[in-house]
Amino acid sequence: MNRVVTIGREFGSGGRELGFRLAEQLGFHYYDKEIVTAIVNNTELAEGFVKDIIDGKTHRYLSLTIGQSMNLSVDYQIHQMQTIIKAQTEVIKEMAQKSDCVIVGRCADYILKDLRDEGGIELFRIFVYADPESRLKRCIDRAPKGENMTEKELVKQIKRINKERASYYEDYTLQKWGDKSNYDLCVNTSFMNIEEMVPHLAKLFEKSSS
Amino acid sequence: MNRVVTIGREFGSGGRELGFRLAEQLGFHYYDKEIVTAIVNNTELAEGFVKDIIDGKTHRYLSLTIGQSMNLSVDYQIHQMQTIIKAQTEVIKEMAQKSDCVIVGRCADYILKDLRDEGGIELFRIFVYADPESRLKRCIDRAPKGENMTEKELVKQIKRINKERASYYEDYTLQKWGDKSNYDLCVNTSFMNIEEMVPHLAKLFEKSSS
Repeated sequence: MNRVVTIGREFGSGGRELGFRLAEQLGFHYYDKEIVTAIVNNTELAEGFVKDIIDGKTHRYLSLTIGQSMNLSVDYQIHQMQTIIKAQTEVIKEMAQKSDCVIVGRCADYILKDLRDEGGIELFRIFVYADPESRLKRCIDRAPKGENMTEKELVKQIKRINKERASYYEDYTLQKWGDKSNYDLCVNTSFMNIEEMVPHLAKLFEKSSS
Repeated sequence: MNRVVTIGREFGSGGRELGFRLAEQLGFHYYDKEIVTAIVNNTELAEGFVKDIIDGKTHRYLSLTIGQSMNLSVDYQIHQMQTIIKAQTEVIKEMAQKSDCVIVGRCADYILKDLRDEGGIELFRIFVYADPESRLKRCIDRAPKGENMTEKELVKQIKRINKERASYYEDYTLQKWGDKSNYDLCVNTSFMNIEEMVPHLAKLFEKSSS
């Protein structure tokens, strides 16, 4: 039976790093941006559009078309969004059934719950979060060279991205994003070193699925 | 520097077992009911009364005295509750400063946060929770001999105790009970074997405080 770890994560909490290292530690496939590519391949929609939608930037499109009072266009956009959501569900289920893997974001915890309940996979759902100060520090420390955002701009960006993630998750799952009842483990990285904790998280998962 | 693990827990989630086993694994002191005894010794109030208050059964006393329209009595009860809360804060800080320990419940995560921020202790705040079905199953499996509660009565009891814990925590800390932002790790025991996971949780804590 395949073993799957899903990682929900607040922007700036190090969730992606934790997921990547965990996949490496467990010898599992790692899926993050690959999900967008797979959806693009399945739907033939533009990559930028797919990425915007599953990053929760729905408002960009809806407000634009609603502003034009073109109902047909709104219907079309909604249809495209539904296509993306359907493709995302299929892609993630396929990944989980193909091999052991770690899947970052994209409502994978919600999408795969049924598969676990049916006995199809072993699932471990992690949510990674951190205090606001810690998230800001991480973003400053890891800012790409040449990105000269002020602290105020960074705080605003972190809030915006987390709001978009929450909005997409909640629209899609009708569950509250980050609500601990939807996860097996919630990890606050504010006081922890991700690299050092990953081997023990891996052991915890192995115990939970043994 | 002393190392302290605090355990917040939903009734029926196995939080006490997790705390006890973790203390054993780490070789730390374990404090649970001992906190009530220490408060009783410090305040000379009746043990039953102290226990009721810190278990969140405040309403028993307030509604009783309010029903009698005796404002003086209400004032007296409130004064006694404040005495207990003050004593609880002192007792828990003393325990944390005396030796490495695991403290179960009693708002210890909140009480000790300042000590960590001041660099006085190393603190790891765990919240243990579980799905309603899993909590019910645990309560059925571990019911004392001779306790013949129906499933319906057990569900009601679990809800009532968790409501009381939440109410006490929230009155005392002005924070939401079980809100993951107040903890370093939230563990859902629904799909995990506590005994098997404890050694890895201990390692996780050792890494976080190394």
